Amino acid sequence: MELDFKKLDGLIPAIIQDAGTGEVLMMGFMNAEACAATQASGEVTFFSRSRNKMWRKGEQSGHVLRVREIRVDCDVDTLLIRVDALGPGVCHEGYRSCFFRKLSPSGEAHVVEERTFDPKAVYGKDAR
Amino acid sequence: MELDFKKLDGLIPAIIQDAGTGEVLMMGFMNAEACAATQASGEVTFFSRSRNKMWRKGEQSGHVLRVREIRVDCDVDTLLIRVDALGPGVCHEGYRSCFFRKLSPSGEAHVVEERTFDPKAVYGKDAR
Repeated sequence: MELDFKKLDGLIPAIIQDAGTGEVLMMGFMNAEACAATQASGEVTFFSRSRNKMWRKGEQSGHVLRVREIRVDCDVDTLLIRVDALGPGVCHEGYRSCFFRKLSPSGEAHVVEERTFDPKAVYGKDAR
Repeated sequence: MELDFKKLDGLIPAIIQDAGTGEVLMMGFMNAEACAATQASGEVTFFSRSRNKMWRKGEQSGHVLRVREIRVDCDVDTLLIRVDALGPGVCHEGYRSCFFRKLSPSGEAHVVEERTFDPKAVYGKDAR
């Protein structure tokens, strides 16, 4: 199975879903190397576009994403990874999911989840 | 709330999740116009990179995605849209979800879902 990395300049999106609850936790990008590292280690590893390097999710926070199952879509250009999420949350702002805000019909964003941890205590200033 | 369309040349990824079951159905891309159309109509509208135009999901098949809720992530560059999915499935290959294949540890893809409709009957040759 050859994944299609061409559409996004060497990257594919990886949707991260909690295997237990079905909650969508975050989305990240992987290059081929990060995909291979994720498969080999069983821990989700992304490629950071802003820092231009691989990063194992949780390497700083300990909030590791253990792979339960990897799904691939019909066009072979997107992954859905079902995980066991260690720790209280994946979001560098201190929430369980990065999707903690809801858009109103007028386009305003409202926080609709509760913080599950103090991001400064976990990440310090340089949150991620 | 200004969404960040800059990271992907004017597009943002939109993850589509069944509001009832939590199943992740597909991922598509939206430009600002498709986002606005989705908000205004209450029906998910993507921007097709291959055809370089907007398309309302279901315009051909009738398998429309009715918006229940739009979430935005911490970096304001990804949407999670919870929907009521009309019809038997969203995938142009005839499955309920586009993520109907599982990757094995060796990287092989295996179909793990049942087809829910005949894609040829719904889409003809030019499936989408």
